[in-house]
Amino acid sequence: MNYRLILKTIGNVLRIEALLMLFPLVVSFLYGGGDHLSFLWSILILASAGTVLASLKSKDTNFRTKDAFVVAGFSWVLLSLFGALPFYFSGYFQSYIDCFFEIASGFTTTGASILTNVEILPKGILFWRSFSHWIGGMGVLMFIMAIMPSINASSLNLMRAESTGPSPDKIVPRMHETAKIIYLIYFVMTVVLVVLLKIAGLPLFDSLVNAFSVAGTGGFSIMNASIGAYNNVAAEIIITVFMFLFGVNFSLYFLLLGKKFKKFFSDIELKTYFGIVITAILIIAIDISGLYGGIWEALRHSSFQVSTIVSTTGFATTDFNLWPTLSKVILVFLMVTGCCAGSTGGGIKMIRLVILVKAAKVELGKIFHPGSVKAVSLNGKKVSDDIVSKTALFFFIYFAVFFVSVLLISIDGKDLVSSTTAVISALSNIGPGLGVVGPTGNFASFSAFSKVVLSFCMIAGRLEFYPLLVLFVPSVWRRELIKEKAAG
Amino acid sequence: MNYRLILKTIGNVLRIEALLMLFPLVVSFLYGGGDHLSFLWSILILASAGTVLASLKSKDTNFRTKDAFVVAGFSWVLLSLFGALPFYFSGYFQSYIDCFFEIASGFTTTGASILTNVEILPKGILFWRSFSHWIGGMGVLMFIMAIMPSINASSLNLMRAESTGPSPDKIVPRMHETAKIIYLIYFVMTVVLVVLLKIAGLPLFDSLVNAFSVAGTGGFSIMNASIGAYNNVAAEIIITVFMFLFGVNFSLYFLLLGKKFKKFFSDIELKTYFGIVITAILIIAIDISGLYGGIWEALRHSSFQVSTIVSTTGFATTDFNLWPTLSKVILVFLMVTGCCAGSTGGGIKMIRLVILVKAAKVELGKIFHPGSVKAVSLNGKKVSDDIVSKTALFFFIYFAVFFVSVLLISIDGKDLVSSTTAVISALSNIGPGLGVVGPTGNFASFSAFSKVVLSFCMIAGRLEFYPLLVLFVPSVWRRELIKEKAAG
Repeated sequence: MNYRLILKTIGNVLRIEALLMLFPLVVSFLYGGGDHLSFLWSILILASAGTVLASLKSKDTNFRTKDAFVVAGFSWVLLSLFGALPFYFSGYFQSYIDCFFEIASGFTTTGASILTNVEILPKGILFWRSFSHWIGGMGVLMFIMAIMPSINASSLNLMRAESTGPSPDKIVPRMHETAKIIYLIYFVMTVVLVVLLKIAGLPLFDSLVNAFSVAGTGGFSIMNASIGAYNNVAAEIIITVFMFLFGVNFSLYFLLLGKKFKKFFSDIELKTYFGIVITAILIIAIDISGLYGGIWEALRHSSFQVSTIVSTTGFATTDFNLWPTLSKVILVFLMVTGCCAGSTGGGIKMIRLVILVKAAKVELGKIFHPGSVKAVSLNGKKVSDDIVSKTALFFFIYFAVFFVSVLLISIDGKDLVSSTTAVISALSNIGPGLGVVGPTGNFASFSAFSKVVLSFCMIAGRLEFYPLLVLFVPSVWRRELIKEKAAG
Repeated sequence: MNYRLILKTIGNVLRIEALLMLFPLVVSFLYGGGDHLSFLWSILILASAGTVLASLKSKDTNFRTKDAFVVAGFSWVLLSLFGALPFYFSGYFQSYIDCFFEIASGFTTTGASILTNVEILPKGILFWRSFSHWIGGMGVLMFIMAIMPSINASSLNLMRAESTGPSPDKIVPRMHETAKIIYLIYFVMTVVLVVLLKIAGLPLFDSLVNAFSVAGTGGFSIMNASIGAYNNVAAEIIITVFMFLFGVNFSLYFLLLGKKFKKFFSDIELKTYFGIVITAILIIAIDISGLYGGIWEALRHSSFQVSTIVSTTGFATTDFNLWPTLSKVILVFLMVTGCCAGSTGGGIKMIRLVILVKAAKVELGKIFHPGSVKAVSLNGKKVSDDIVSKTALFFFIYFAVFFVSVLLISIDGKDLVSSTTAVISALSNIGPGLGVVGPTGNFASFSAFSKVVLSFCMIAGRLEFYPLLVLFVPSVWRRELIKEKAAG
């Protein structure tokens, strides 16, 4: 294990976080609200801790897989532990654990909140809360790669540890360039969204923070009634479309830039994503049409909710707790699946489902043709048995972590639906679930212990388990320490 | 595809079913109740249909994998379609679909019922209902193998298609002998149970039918209040222990017969099964102790319920619908896992969970030691990558079928907990779920469509998906037909 490189990189992550906190600091000076000291202190602490770590010298700048996973795991935990400081200093939160839950929910783009009244918060705090979605959406290590060419060497491993999907890959040969291009697409799409929301009639500040939330597929809102508070159909439609768009694999947008339209539209994951979304919208619209004034109103609500859930954003315009069971089942299914790999959204990802369904078909086919060497293929390319096996294991790990977490939070004694959907919501980085954590509810009533468990779920889900799980496998660490000792 | 062999074997299955129906016929003559004609007609129909098919000549008596899976799939569907006839003719059921649901629930050892009052049924019908558990428990194809040495040739494939677990194997070289030994163990254990229940004070008829239910891990009872109706602590304890015992892999009992105690007690699946059961009993006992008069009463109820759920029997002595969320979460988890491979119980099976947890650990370890060739091993033997991959896919298929089925039955508009646990209960062959299908409820209020879906789930779960799914994959059949045409 390259401890120096690991600590140095984590130091850089903290320094970047200090820099990013300058934005809410500026906001708090502009809008007043008395929260500027919260940010100043936090920046001081972050910059000090970060600089101490970043000043470590490391001769070997090669990120091996294990180094990358440990960096990713620790970075995201520390990002949240330090990111919670402004909330804590502001005095608007009940405990440090609440602050940690809230910012972990922010960075992981979950959008689950323990706040019962967000409208009383000062603008700086609100900005930091929503900005964390934007930072976490595309990933902070990816950001470091984009701005620091120096750690380019073997940073593909870093990217793999932080970004989503079964086999993330660079879109141009140089990692540094890949990260830059992805962040540029992300930035431009966000700016377009801010402008459109402003045109639709939202105040500038609201356009900005809601755009952060949509771009990161987070779901924090600065209104208690979420997007429903604006009562603005144009804004709702714009947000519906953009939530869907941010759920698409960003390397596909790179194809569009290169005018490879055919390759873009024939992508199997995009087609599946689109097909599932359209089907879900139509079934739900029919199912709920009796609850709203006719099919158009029903379509408006079903398309917003499907888009916000499948993209794992989690905004609210209506309370789907009150919808019929069929609609709720579809929404819970979309919570589990999530959207596309390489997007800012969470969940198991469409591409994994495609791989597993194809693998199951191949397996069934083998009964009829035992000698068959038919393999799973995606977009015309063969998928290795190793990837298929890893994907199926990922599916198992999702449910294993789900079960253990439900067990732990069910000690609180909340009903079954609330407990299970709270965990799904955390693991897939959605925000709302059903029952007490439904669109009009929040996570305030959970115990401190459950909040820690759910924060763990959010980070584990965002990093797709491995980087966080490796930190918790004692046998692996024991072996590692023995090896270090033997070597030293 | 060897159609003649397939049809001939199915014919034999139907003839065996006709023979087995002689038992309830005798019961109905002994006890009266006027249901003997229902059986006589059914036997006539079965024997005719069976004899026509069984008289087909097949030169090639070699069961290839595909033949075996198709035989298993069709046999179980036909077994239920014909087995429903006595119910239908008796006039005690509302529709043929209800009869089909009830007997499919019987053969698959699920024990879910659409009856609201079983106590009014004549004894012959009650006997057939419970006897179907005993027949289905160890499997009807296994029974044919045991009594017909003629089809011994390649019948390992038949056994694999019907019995449970990732890689069922014969315990002695000859398949015919393996089937005989397993049925003998099954028979002796059942007889011991009948005697014990009689000694504990149950009437002979009740001892017999309840023993069928326990041995097959079914769960049908001839009392409306299930086992709770007897208010007999001794019988409850005997049943608790035997439900657990019938959830153990029967090839392990063969080890005991050979006095290989060390190998028996060191079996990883047995240890896991035992460990999970004890842990679940203790946690639930503590969790529910406030609801019952102290810890002993709580232990009695928790051990009965854990044993009945994990073995996938599904008897009731108390209503766990009223238990705290933590206890309910544990029970639902046990519903999904089920017990051991090669037992009469259902679910995903302990051994598959062991394989998947080990595989996940190996996968995590690879991050630290990329070159590592560490593999999953069970009882000191290496598990092939193919088995690991198949096991992980099995887990996915379970949840894929679960989701589609929940979607279909949620059209009925029942609440989320009832809809989801009804499907888990059917897939894992338990019987009760939570909500309206809880221990004191039943499946009567589902629509005919939902009952068909749930019947499909029960058979698919009992056969561990593949044999039933192959019947429904059109592409496979199309290819098969093209091949036949080309060959002919």
